[in-house]
Amino acid sequence: MDFDFKPWRDQVLASTEQALSVWVGHNTPASLAEPMRYAVLDGGKRFRPLLVHAASQAVGGQLEAALRAACALELIHAYSLVHDDMPCMDNDVLRRGKPTVHVQFGQASALLAGDALQALAFEVLTPEQGVEPVVQARLCALLSRAAGSTGMAGGQAIDLASVGLQLTEDQLREMHRLKTGALLHASVMMGAACGQASAQAHTQLGVYADALGLAFQVMDDVLDVTADSATLGKTAGKDAANDKPTYVSLMGLQAARDQAMSLHARAVEALARSGLNQTQALLALADLVVHRAH
Amino acid sequence: MDFDFKPWRDQVLASTEQALSVWVGHNTPASLAEPMRYAVLDGGKRFRPLLVHAASQAVGGQLEAALRAACALELIHAYSLVHDDMPCMDNDVLRRGKPTVHVQFGQASALLAGDALQALAFEVLTPEQGVEPVVQARLCALLSRAAGSTGMAGGQAIDLASVGLQLTEDQLREMHRLKTGALLHASVMMGAACGQASAQAHTQLGVYADALGLAFQVMDDVLDVTADSATLGKTAGKDAANDKPTYVSLMGLQAARDQAMSLHARAVEALARSGLNQTQALLALADLVVHRAH
Repeated sequence: MDFDFKPWRDQVLASTEQALSVWVGHNTPASLAEPMRYAVLDGGKRFRPLLVHAASQAVGGQLEAALRAACALELIHAYSLVHDDMPCMDNDVLRRGKPTVHVQFGQASALLAGDALQALAFEVLTPEQGVEPVVQARLCALLSRAAGSTGMAGGQAIDLASVGLQLTEDQLREMHRLKTGALLHASVMMGAACGQASAQAHTQLGVYADALGLAFQVMDDVLDVTADSATLGKTAGKDAANDKPTYVSLMGLQAARDQAMSLHARAVEALARSGLNQTQALLALADLVVHRAH
Repeated sequence: MDFDFKPWRDQVLASTEQALSVWVGHNTPASLAEPMRYAVLDGGKRFRPLLVHAASQAVGGQLEAALRAACALELIHAYSLVHDDMPCMDNDVLRRGKPTVHVQFGQASALLAGDALQALAFEVLTPEQGVEPVVQARLCALLSRAAGSTGMAGGQAIDLASVGLQLTEDQLREMHRLKTGALLHASVMMGAACGQASAQAHTQLGVYADALGLAFQVMDDVLDVTADSATLGKTAGKDAANDKPTYVSLMGLQAARDQAMSLHARAVEALARSGLNQTQALLALADLVVHRAH
């Protein structure tokens, strides 16, 4: 295998950063552009953009469409963090090693910046030219459903209602499937929508995406317990402190780690069954999820 | 002219209400579905849906596309009211004669419900079938730009930054052009996107939409001073009380009313120049804007 992950990743990160820097805050009143740019630029692992480009590469997808899908997902992710950090939600003051948006700019600006970032995601997906309208429509369909009440926002509502409650593993999995999984799933499927894939490839990419999304969340819970705030770039141990149910609190640290490894195996198997050849980046990202330190 | 406005309006309102009732909260966790439905259903003048259908009718637009555009605009409008009413923004407790969403369900639920309503707008615009993908993409492009940082959210940011400041009439107009005008403009242009229109018709529909949007805001300021809370269904006089600049505070009551009438004339003239025949509903809505009591 002649695939070298690091230069591929650096290329994706650079193109994402460059495009976001042009698009976020463009033609925008300064009082809104500032918190928007603060929330999005120069931070974050850009895991969703990496997933989009990896999936797009696997199906020979169009680069401009993949770039826009990658940025749109990152904009939705960023808006959700801004709103999630607000006092009426998680009331968090530290994010990616910096004061959160509402701490830096005030709650009203944080609220508006989040709202505007969500809209911008759909602006980015619908350019005047460069992406076929049928692809634009498909990308908007996938993203809106992953972000909304049957996806991320729905998961956040369940999360909110579950503080202090004893969830079963099934309930916890359902919450995470929506809250975090939906957007990761959409990352893979939006990447796939940038090119042509067989029905079989689509199905197996869906299996890969679900396994990866769940593994990502399990590892998040593991790291919340085992890493410190400096490494994470956010407040460590806050889920335990907030009495939120986690995989670790539910099944214990070792079983959670085992679960992540078993999900990794399922993701790898799905790629093998997909009939796709260019899956090296998708494989590398699956490895990254279970071996990441933050 | 054999056009009868009232039955036409009742038909649009009924179809909008029925579709929203099916779509809002569908497959959604109950704790999120409840505030979403509370925010959207059974209230509001549905002025944006009326504009969409009127414009669509003028260009022989497809009904399913117009219905979805109408509902999407109403979802964006509803989400903006939910977030705008929150304590960190206008801190309003009364809306359409009912307690505002955050008073009824708490701030976290109001925040999430607003976020989910915005996403739902784009879900509604991108069905599996029934609307051509090229129309879906165009509707998403228009709506996202009208809702985001170069439209409504941008206007709200300017509004927020202008409290207690002495704006010029130009600055005030720019603020309203974004805050309220962008979504009204999009209502007309999304309606037009449901069918076929000449370049001339497009241009004149744009002129109509701009004049109507500005007249709408001027009359809002007039009514904020002249109507009482019971008639408005929201807190009257709040802009004056919050020391927000308005057309009335800037130019006086009579000049504001004259301005609205002159904008009405401009809107009517644009329709005459559009080359379109079925403009009766658009004309009726222009009349409604300057003659409404709330």
